[in-house]
Amino acid sequence: MGLFTKDIKTLNDLFVHQLQDIYYAEQQLVKALPKLAEKATNPQLKQGFLTHLEETKGHVKRLEQVFEMHGAKAKAVDCPAIDGIIEETDEVAGDVADKEVLDAALINAAQAAEHYEITRYGTLIAWAKQLGRADCAAVLQKTLEEEKAADHKLTSIAESKVNIRAAS
Amino acid sequence: MGLFTKDIKTLNDLFVHQLQDIYYAEQQLVKALPKLAEKATNPQLKQGFLTHLEETKGHVKRLEQVFEMHGAKAKAVDCPAIDGIIEETDEVAGDVADKEVLDAALINAAQAAEHYEITRYGTLIAWAKQLGRADCAAVLQKTLEEEKAADHKLTSIAESKVNIRAAS
Repeated sequence: MGLFTKDIKTLNDLFVHQLQDIYYAEQQLVKALPKLAEKATNPQLKQGFLTHLEETKGHVKRLEQVFEMHGAKAKAVDCPAIDGIIEETDEVAGDVADKEVLDAALINAAQAAEHYEITRYGTLIAWAKQLGRADCAAVLQKTLEEEKAADHKLTSIAESKVNIRAAS
Repeated sequence: MGLFTKDIKTLNDLFVHQLQDIYYAEQQLVKALPKLAEKATNPQLKQGFLTHLEETKGHVKRLEQVFEMHGAKAKAVDCPAIDGIIEETDEVAGDVADKEVLDAALINAAQAAEHYEITRYGTLIAWAKQLGRADCAAVLQKTLEEEKAADHKLTSIAESKVNIRAAS
Protein backbone atom coordinates (compact mmCIF):
# COMPACT_ATOMS: atom_id res chain seq x y z
CA MET A 1 0.00 0.00 0.00
CA GLY A 2 1.41 3.35 -0.88
CA LEU A 3 0.69 6.58 0.89
CA PHE A 4 -2.58 8.09 -0.33
CA THR A 5 -2.69 5.83 -3.39
CA LYS A 6 -6.31 4.85 -2.64
CA ASP A 7 -5.26 1.21 -2.82
CA ILE A 8 -7.88 0.12 -0.28
CA LYS A 9 -11.14 -0.24 -2.16
CA THR A 10 -12.99 -2.96 -0.24
CA LEU A 11 -13.34 -4.29 3.30
CA ASN A 12 -11.27 -7.24 2.09
CA ASP A 13 -8.42 -4.86 1.11
CA LEU A 14 -8.67 -3.22 4.55
CA PHE A 15 -8.63 -6.64 6.24
CA VAL A 16 -5.47 -7.66 4.36
CA HIS A 17 -3.85 -4.28 5.10
CA GLN A 18 -4.59 -4.69 8.81
CA LEU A 19 -3.17 -8.22 8.75
CA GLN A 20 0.04 -6.79 7.25
CA ASP A 21 0.12 -4.09 9.95
CA ILE A 22 -0.22 -6.55 12.85
CA TYR A 23 2.23 -8.93 11.14
CA TYR A 24 4.81 -6.13 11.34
CA ALA A 25 3.82 -5.33 14.94
CA GLU A 26 4.23 -8.96 16.08
CA GLN A 27 7.66 -9.12 14.41
CA GLN A 28 8.75 -5.96 16.22
CA LEU A 29 7.55 -7.42 19.51
CA VAL A 30 9.60 -10.57 18.90
CA LYS A 31 12.60 -8.20 18.83
CA ALA A 32 11.47 -6.05 21.78
CA LEU A 33 10.43 -8.73 24.30
CA PRO A 34 13.93 -10.14 24.97
CA LYS A 35 15.06 -6.58 25.81
CA LEU A 36 12.16 -6.17 28.26
CA ALA A 37 13.05 -9.54 29.84
CA GLU A 38 16.67 -8.47 30.16
CA LYS A 39 15.75 -5.19 31.88
CA ALA A 40 13.20 -6.73 34.28
CA THR A 41 14.30 -7.38 37.87
CA ASN A 42 11.33 -9.29 39.29
CA PRO A 43 11.87 -12.96 38.29
CA GLN A 44 8.16 -13.57 37.65
CA LEU A 45 8.06 -10.57 35.31
CA LYS A 46 11.23 -11.65 33.54
CA GLN A 47 9.79 -15.13 33.00
CA GLY A 48 6.47 -13.64 31.90
CA PHE A 49 8.19 -11.66 29.14
CA LEU A 50 10.09 -14.78 27.98
CA THR A 51 6.92 -16.88 27.95
CA HIS A 52 5.12 -14.19 25.99
CA LEU A 53 8.05 -14.06 23.55
CA GLU A 54 7.40 -17.71 22.67
CA GLU A 55 3.67 -17.00 22.32
CA THR A 56 4.44 -14.01 20.11
CA LYS A 57 6.54 -16.16 17.79
CA GLY A 58 3.46 -18.40 17.54
CA HIS A 59 1.31 -15.34 16.68
CA VAL A 60 3.62 -14.56 13.76
CA LYS A 61 3.15 -18.13 12.48
CA ARG A 62 -0.63 -17.95 12.94
CA LEU A 63 -0.74 -14.76 10.89
CA GLU A 64 1.19 -16.53 8.12
CA GLN A 65 -1.43 -19.29 8.31
CA VAL A 66 -4.26 -16.72 7.97
CA PHE A 67 -2.53 -15.03 5.01
CA GLU A 68 -2.29 -18.43 3.34
CA MET A 69 -5.90 -19.43 4.12
CA HIS A 70 -7.03 -16.12 2.69
CA GLY A 71 -4.89 -16.43 -0.45
CA ALA A 72 -2.81 -13.34 0.33
CA LYS A 73 0.95 -13.05 0.45
CA ALA A 74 2.43 -12.75 3.98
CA LYS A 75 3.86 -9.25 3.93
CA ALA A 76 4.51 -6.64 6.61
CA VAL A 77 3.69 -2.94 6.28
CA ASP A 78 5.08 -0.27 8.56
CA CYS A 79 3.02 0.21 11.70
CA PRO A 80 3.86 3.62 13.21
CA ALA A 81 1.66 2.84 16.21
CA ILE A 82 3.72 -0.09 17.49
CA ASP A 83 6.93 1.78 16.58
CA GLY A 84 5.71 4.64 18.77
CA ILE A 85 4.81 2.32 21.65
CA ILE A 86 8.25 0.66 21.51
CA GLU A 87 10.03 4.02 21.18
CA GLU A 88 8.18 5.30 24.24
CA THR A 89 9.19 2.16 26.16
CA ASP A 90 12.87 2.73 25.36
CA GLU A 91 12.64 6.40 26.34
CA VAL A 92 10.91 5.84 29.68
CA ALA A 93 13.05 2.78 30.54
CA GLY A 94 16.18 4.84 29.88
CA ASP A 95 14.97 7.51 32.30
CA VAL A 96 14.23 5.24 35.27
CA ALA A 97 16.98 4.96 37.86
CA ASP A 98 15.36 2.59 40.37
CA LYS A 99 15.04 -1.15 39.52
CA GLU A 100 11.65 -1.64 41.15
CA VAL A 101 10.25 1.48 39.48
CA LEU A 102 11.70 0.25 36.18
CA ASP A 103 9.70 -2.98 36.54
CA ALA A 104 6.53 -0.90 36.93
CA ALA A 105 7.46 1.12 33.82
CA LEU A 106 8.18 -2.07 31.82
CA ILE A 107 4.76 -3.50 32.71
CA ASN A 108 3.12 -0.25 31.68
CA ALA A 109 4.96 -0.39 28.34
CA ALA A 110 4.14 -4.03 27.67
CA GLN A 111 0.47 -3.44 28.48
CA ALA A 112 0.30 -0.63 25.90
CA ALA A 113 1.55 -3.13 23.30
CA GLU A 114 -0.93 -5.79 24.50
CA HIS A 115 -3.85 -3.37 24.29
CA TYR A 116 -2.78 -2.30 20.81
CA GLU A 117 -2.87 -5.93 19.73
CA ILE A 118 -6.15 -6.64 21.54
CA THR A 119 -7.93 -3.85 19.66
CA ARG A 120 -6.43 -4.84 16.30
CA TYR A 121 -7.21 -8.55 16.66
CA GLY A 122 -10.72 -7.68 17.85
CA THR A 123 -11.32 -5.68 14.68
CA LEU A 124 -9.68 -8.30 12.43
CA ILE A 125 -11.98 -10.97 13.87
CA ALA A 126 -15.07 -8.81 13.28
CA TRP A 127 -14.00 -8.08 9.70
CA ALA A 128 -13.12 -11.74 9.00
CA LYS A 129 -16.62 -12.80 10.11
CA GLN A 130 -18.20 -10.06 8.01
CA LEU A 131 -16.21 -11.31 5.01
CA GLY A 132 -17.50 -14.86 5.59
CA ARG A 133 -14.11 -16.07 6.83
CA ALA A 134 -15.11 -17.68 10.11
CA ASP A 135 -12.12 -20.00 9.62
CA CYS A 136 -9.66 -17.07 9.68
CA ALA A 137 -11.59 -15.50 12.60
CA ALA A 138 -11.16 -18.72 14.62
CA VAL A 139 -7.37 -18.70 14.17
CA LEU A 140 -7.14 -15.00 15.09
CA GLN A 141 -9.35 -15.62 18.13
CA LYS A 142 -6.73 -17.99 19.60
CA THR A 143 -4.15 -15.19 19.50
CA LEU A 144 -6.60 -12.67 20.95
CA GLU A 145 -7.21 -14.96 23.93
CA GLU A 146 -3.45 -15.24 24.53
CA GLU A 147 -3.01 -11.45 24.33
CA LYS A 148 -5.81 -10.93 26.86
CA ALA A 149 -4.31 -13.55 29.17
CA ALA A 150 -0.87 -11.90 28.90
CA ASP A 151 -2.42 -8.52 29.76
CA HIS A 152 -4.20 -9.94 32.83
CA LYS A 153 -1.01 -11.66 33.96
CA LEU A 154 0.88 -8.35 33.76
CA THR A 155 -1.85 -6.62 35.79
CA SER A 156 -1.63 -9.36 38.39
CA ILE A 157 2.19 -9.12 38.67
CA ALA A 158 1.94 -5.33 38.89
CA GLU A 159 -0.71 -5.31 41.60
CA SER A 160 0.60 -8.20 43.69
CA LYS A 161 4.32 -7.44 43.56
CA VAL A 162 5.84 -4.71 41.48
CA ASN A 163 3.80 -1.62 42.39
CA ILE A 164 4.11 -2.34 46.11
CA ARG A 165 7.90 -2.61 45.89
CA ALA A 166 8.14 0.38 43.55
CA ALA A 167 6.25 2.56 46.04
CA SER A 168 8.32 1.43 49.03
CA MET B 1 12.20 14.57 31.57
CA GLY B 2 15.15 14.29 29.23
CA LEU B 3 16.16 11.27 27.23
CA PHE B 4 18.13 8.82 29.37
CA THR B 5 18.73 11.37 32.09
CA LYS B 6 17.56 8.95 34.80
CA ASP B 7 15.12 11.61 35.96
CA ILE B 8 12.56 9.04 37.14
CA LYS B 9 13.66 7.88 40.58
CA THR B 10 10.42 6.96 42.31
CA LEU B 11 6.98 5.60 41.50
CA ASN B 12 5.74 9.12 42.11
CA ASP B 13 8.07 10.44 39.37
CA LEU B 14 6.80 7.72 37.04
CA PHE B 15 3.19 8.60 37.88
CA VAL B 16 3.78 12.28 37.09
CA HIS B 17 5.63 11.36 33.86
CA GLN B 18 2.71 9.18 32.77
CA LEU B 19 0.25 11.97 33.60
CA GLN B 20 2.29 14.26 31.34
CA ASP B 21 2.26 11.62 28.58
CA ILE B 22 -1.51 11.13 28.64
CA TYR B 23 -2.01 14.92 28.93
CA TYR B 24 -0.18 15.25 25.59
CA ALA B 25 -2.16 12.32 24.12
CA GLU B 26 -5.53 13.85 25.10
CA GLN B 27 -4.49 17.19 23.58
CA GLN B 28 -3.56 15.47 20.31
CA LEU B 29 -6.92 13.69 20.30
CA VAL B 30 -8.72 17.02 20.73
CA LYS B 31 -7.06 17.99 17.43
CA ALA B 32 -7.60 14.62 15.69
CA LEU B 33 -11.27 13.94 16.54
CA PRO B 34 -12.77 16.78 14.45
CA LYS B 35 -10.88 15.37 11.43
CA LEU B 36 -12.29 11.90 12.08
CA ALA B 37 -15.80 13.41 12.37
CA GLU B 38 -15.30 15.27 9.10
CA LYS B 39 -14.21 12.12 7.24
CA ALA B 40 -16.96 9.88 8.65
CA THR B 41 -19.99 9.17 6.44
CA ASN B 42 -22.29 7.30 8.81
CA PRO B 43 -24.21 10.01 10.77
CA GLN B 44 -24.14 8.02 14.02
CA LEU B 45 -20.36 7.63 13.73
CA LYS B 46 -19.90 11.32 12.90
CA GLN B 47 -21.96 12.29 15.95
CA GLY B 48 -20.08 9.75 18.06
CA PHE B 49 -16.76 11.40 17.23
CA LEU B 50 -18.14 14.86 18.04
CA THR B 51 -19.57 13.68 21.35
CA HIS B 52 -16.26 12.06 22.24
CA LEU B 53 -14.47 15.30 21.30
CA GLU B 54 -16.43 17.09 24.02
CA GLU B 55 -15.63 14.29 26.48
CA THR B 56 -11.95 14.45 25.53
CA LYS B 57 -11.85 18.20 26.27
CA GLY B 58 -13.23 17.25 29.69
CA HIS B 59 -10.43 14.67 30.11
CA VAL B 60 -7.83 17.38 29.52
CA LYS B 61 -9.46 19.46 32.28
CA ARG B 62 -9.63 16.47 34.63
CA LEU B 63 -5.91 15.85 34.12
CA GLU B 64 -5.22 19.49 35.00
CA GLN B 65 -7.27 18.93 38.15
CA VAL B 66 -5.18 15.82 39.03
CA PHE B 67 -1.91 17.70 38.42
CA GLU B 68 -3.14 20.41 40.77
CA MET B 69 -4.38 17.95 43.43
CA HIS B 70 -1.00 16.23 43.29
CA GLY B 71 0.98 19.48 43.48
CA ALA B 72 2.59 19.02 40.06
CA LYS B 73 2.69 21.46 37.17
CA ALA B 74 0.39 20.57 34.24
CA LYS B 75 2.88 19.86 31.48
CA ALA B 76 2.80 17.68 28.39
CA VAL B 77 5.66 15.42 27.26
CA ASP B 78 5.91 13.90 23.81
CA CYS B 79 4.04 10.65 23.48
CA PRO B 80 5.36 8.78 20.43
CA ALA B 81 2.71 6.08 20.90
CA ILE B 82 -0.28 8.38 20.29
CA ASP B 83 1.64 10.15 17.52
CA GLY B 84 2.13 6.74 15.85
CA ILE B 85 -1.55 5.84 16.25
CA ILE B 86 -2.65 9.16 14.72
CA GLU B 87 -0.06 8.90 11.91
CA GLU B 88 -1.32 5.42 11.07
CA THR B 89 -4.89 6.73 11.00
CA ASP B 90 -3.97 9.43 8.50
CA GLU B 91 -2.07 6.95 6.31
CA VAL B 92 -4.82 4.34 6.18
CA ALA B 93 -7.59 6.92 5.79
CA GLY B 94 -5.72 8.43 2.85
CA ASP B 95 -5.54 5.03 1.16
CA VAL B 96 -9.24 4.14 1.38
CA ALA B 97 -11.30 4.88 -1.72
CA ASP B 98 -14.75 3.67 -0.59
CA LYS B 99 -16.78 5.74 1.94
CA GLU B 100 -18.25 2.78 3.80
CA VAL B 101 -14.85 1.09 4.04
CA LEU B 102 -13.38 4.38 5.26
CA ASP B 103 -15.90 4.40 8.12
CA ALA B 104 -14.67 0.92 9.14
CA ALA B 105 -11.05 2.15 8.99
CA LEU B 106 -11.89 5.25 11.08
CA ILE B 107 -13.50 3.11 13.79
CA ASN B 108 -10.46 0.84 13.82
CA ALA B 109 -8.20 3.89 14.22
CA ALA B 110 -10.29 5.47 16.97
CA GLN B 111 -10.40 2.18 18.88
CA ALA B 112 -6.60 1.97 18.85
CA ALA B 113 -6.53 5.40 20.51
CA GLU B 114 -9.23 4.38 23.01
CA HIS B 115 -7.34 1.22 23.97
CA TYR B 116 -4.14 3.18 24.38
CA GLU B 117 -5.93 5.48 26.80
CA ILE B 118 -7.69 2.62 28.60
CA THR B 119 -4.38 0.92 29.37
CA ARG B 120 -2.69 4.16 30.47
CA TYR B 121 -5.55 5.27 32.72
CA GLY B 122 -5.75 1.75 34.18
CA THR B 123 -2.08 1.96 35.16
CA LEU B 124 -2.36 5.55 36.43
CA ILE B 125 -5.24 4.55 38.71
CA ALA B 126 -3.27 1.58 40.09
CA TRP B 127 -0.23 3.78 40.73
CA ALA B 128 -2.32 6.56 42.30
CA LYS B 129 -3.82 4.07 44.76
CA GLN B 130 -0.37 2.65 45.53
CA LEU B 131 0.83 6.18 46.24
CA GLY B 132 -2.07 6.75 48.66
CA ARG B 133 -3.82 9.13 46.24
CA ALA B 134 -7.28 7.56 46.16
CA ASP B 135 -8.59 11.07 45.45
CA CYS B 136 -6.59 11.31 42.19
CA ALA B 137 -7.55 7.72 41.33
CA ALA B 138 -11.24 8.59 41.66
CA VAL B 139 -10.95 11.49 39.19
CA LEU B 140 -8.98 9.35 36.70
CA GLN B 141 -11.56 6.56 37.08
CA LYS B 142 -14.29 8.84 35.70
CA THR B 143 -12.28 9.31 32.51
CA LEU B 144 -11.50 5.60 32.26
CA GLU B 145 -15.23 4.81 32.38
CA GLU B 146 -15.89 7.30 29.56
CA GLU B 147 -13.09 5.82 27.43
CA LYS B 148 -14.47 2.32 27.91
CA ALA B 149 -17.98 3.49 27.04
CA ALA B 150 -16.67 5.24 23.90
CA ASP B 151 -14.88 2.04 22.86
CA HIS B 152 -18.04 -0.05 23.32
CA LYS B 153 -20.07 2.47 21.37
CA LEU B 154 -17.61 2.27 18.47
CA THR B 155 -17.81 -1.55 18.51
CA SER B 156 -21.59 -1.34 18.47
CA ILE B 157 -21.67 1.10 15.50
CA ALA B 158 -19.12 -1.08 13.66
CA GLU B 159 -21.02 -4.32 14.18
CA SER B 160 -24.55 -3.03 13.69
CA LYS B 161 -23.98 -0.71 10.73
CA VAL B 162 -20.56 0.06 9.30
CA ASN B 163 -19.01 -3.39 8.74
CA ILE B 164 -22.17 -4.68 7.05
CA ARG B 165 -22.25 -1.76 4.60
CA ALA B 166 -18.47 -1.90 4.08
CA ALA B 167 -18.69 -5.58 3.10
CA SER B 168 -21.62 -5.10 0.72
